[in-house]
Amino acid sequence: MLKVTNMKYKLPAATKIRWADIVDTPEVVIDLDVVEQNLENCQEQCDRLGFAAHPHIKTHKLPLLAFAQLEAGAKGITCQKIGEAEVMADAGIEDILISYNVIGEQKIRRLLALSKRANLTVCADSRAVVAGLARIFKNKARPLKVLVECDTGMHRCGVVSAEQAVALAKKIAATSGLHFEGLMSYPAAGGGNTALDWLADAKQACLRAGLKVAVVSTGGTPDLYNLNTNSDITQYRPGSYIYNDRSLIAAGACGIEDCALSVITTVVSCPDAQRVMVDAGSKSLSSDLFGLDGHGLVVGHPKITIPALSEEHGHLATNQKSKTAKLKVGNILRIIPNHACVVSNLFDQVTLVRGDYFVSRQAVLARGKTQ
Amino acid sequence: MLKVTNMKYKLPAATKIRWADIVDTPEVVIDLDVVEQNLENCQEQCDRLGFAAHPHIKTHKLPLLAFAQLEAGAKGITCQKIGEAEVMADAGIEDILISYNVIGEQKIRRLLALSKRANLTVCADSRAVVAGLARIFKNKARPLKVLVECDTGMHRCGVVSAEQAVALAKKIAATSGLHFEGLMSYPAAGGGNTALDWLADAKQACLRAGLKVAVVSTGGTPDLYNLNTNSDITQYRPGSYIYNDRSLIAAGACGIEDCALSVITTVVSCPDAQRVMVDAGSKSLSSDLFGLDGHGLVVGHPKITIPALSEEHGHLATNQKSKTAKLKVGNILRIIPNHACVVSNLFDQVTLVRGDYFVSRQAVLARGKTQ
Repeated sequence: MLKVTNMKYKLPAATKIRWADIVDTPEVVIDLDVVEQNLENCQEQCDRLGFAAHPHIKTHKLPLLAFAQLEAGAKGITCQKIGEAEVMADAGIEDILISYNVIGEQKIRRLLALSKRANLTVCADSRAVVAGLARIFKNKARPLKVLVECDTGMHRCGVVSAEQAVALAKKIAATSGLHFEGLMSYPAAGGGNTALDWLADAKQACLRAGLKVAVVSTGGTPDLYNLNTNSDITQYRPGSYIYNDRSLIAAGACGIEDCALSVITTVVSCPDAQRVMVDAGSKSLSSDLFGLDGHGLVVGHPKITIPALSEEHGHLATNQKSKTAKLKVGNILRIIPNHACVVSNLFDQVTLVRGDYFVSRQAVLARGKTQ
Repeated sequence: MLKVTNMKYKLPAATKIRWADIVDTPEVVIDLDVVEQNLENCQEQCDRLGFAAHPHIKTHKLPLLAFAQLEAGAKGITCQKIGEAEVMADAGIEDILISYNVIGEQKIRRLLALSKRANLTVCADSRAVVAGLARIFKNKARPLKVLVECDTGMHRCGVVSAEQAVALAKKIAATSGLHFEGLMSYPAAGGGNTALDWLADAKQACLRAGLKVAVVSTGGTPDLYNLNTNSDITQYRPGSYIYNDRSLIAAGACGIEDCALSVITTVVSCPDAQRVMVDAGSKSLSSDLFGLDGHGLVVGHPKITIPALSEEHGHLATNQKSKTAKLKVGNILRIIPNHACVVSNLFDQVTLVRGDYFVSRQAVLARGKTQ
């Protein structure tokens, strides 16, 4: 999918320093040339389909890249946690959707504080969530926008029928301090038109009940490129597209050359002819399998697999008898992880590069924001 | 295994504040009463067997608990990464084993700096590792102690025969700036006497070659309680025992009451009669399965399982039609994770408690030290 870029905005330029000369391992390296291309591809697709892009920052957790998403054309960003939204608001980002049921007085008071400096939207899938929000937001001058989360097939959170969606939408619309803004779903990947049909039915049911549905929001990177124009969807929340990863290669959504995030690792032991150990284990790659065989893709070594991880060791299976592929202690390898988002959460800092050249190191400011 | 404690040292006392009144979720809560008992049980067993305890701090990553381990009787600590050892040395801990091949000039220069303020031991399993250490440490007044790492059945790192162990030990002993200190293994769990026999053979082979073997080091929490006195082992490196977890319950090494670390979580959605969603997902519990079914143990709810995790959602399977077990949005649950060590790496802070009462919050200073 990679092609020549023509971005209007600027992420930092490369230096003349080769990152291979200064990086230590294990380390996350992010290629901004690839990031820029991924941003452009996604924005073009959202523009083509008439969707407002609200990318999910969980993949990168970096204010710098959230700004790049906005400058590429996104209308706002999506976060999963208030702590993530606080980091992004601190950086000056204004339009934030928290696509998660916010529950508990501590979190809702933080939400109220955040609402003074950001244009917030949240979601809800039950009367209990709505009641919690209402207790803190009632009588506030600027009502909190609330989307009804719909379970369109993912079987995670969400109301499970159009009737439930309408009932909850009416409750929100009738609650002081809250504003019913529309419908939201995180659909099952590859679910085809099921989620779109579900949301279209629920929207019609809301309209019949006299409710205005300003937003119909859906998400998921792989399906964005499968969609045709659909007048009901107004907002799309892609996440992984900015980096891509092995799971998206497996889903046919991208190629190796579209993967911006890699884990750089050193060979620490070659104990026998079948086994090579590297210093990237589950503390660097996570244990996420996503239904795949093995724990990542070793770039340039298609016959090497990663059958197991310890916390600090990647267990590579190879054939050290093949002279061309023979690895030695100290060799540096590049691994594309199964799941990029969780890797971003494991590292305090990442190294930005362009091709072979170093750009800068960045603190992953929104990592570890569990609350 | 939990019993009345009689510790000589003092971890901080409880306050009169109930932690349930102030904790937000998801959050890691660590019960110091249970920690103290686990420290005492382990130290008693090491004393009985005549082992010097060198507990691995990867499980807790907290200087406070490393000091508690030393005060309980440990002779030093074990780290996997130089970054972890730097944090522990900053806190004033002197005797540190880095049980990992240290490779690359940046890391070995940091090791040299660290050796000025800590009594360091490292390991090596190849001539390449020894050569790297020697390049920086040669001609230093205080030689670096090096253990030969042995693969006694784990099939991770380590020399694979007693002959290889002797050859590498001779190389270390003959290298300027390095001192051959002994043998080290991380054995396969439940391997019985295989690892002990392996190490006994290798030690005899070293002695026959005229080498002094000051240390024979092994590790692993579950097997510590299965061992009988064995004169060859001098050092034991238990890790998980301080917290325990669901994998150790499954291994028969402890009971629920011996688990010091829990993830506290809130029910965020009850979409249907079989499904309850909580706010602890793989970003809180990790995806580590360790061969178990499901992603943790919901304390007090033995019929509830955790069949799946999203990043920010735990998917609980239950029977909401049973009135006694019925959960509601906002309920707080306590989950014992499959693997405590990786949970410590996911949280910037943890909450220390004693029973129902709050002690303090602690930054997990050695988390995220990938290098």
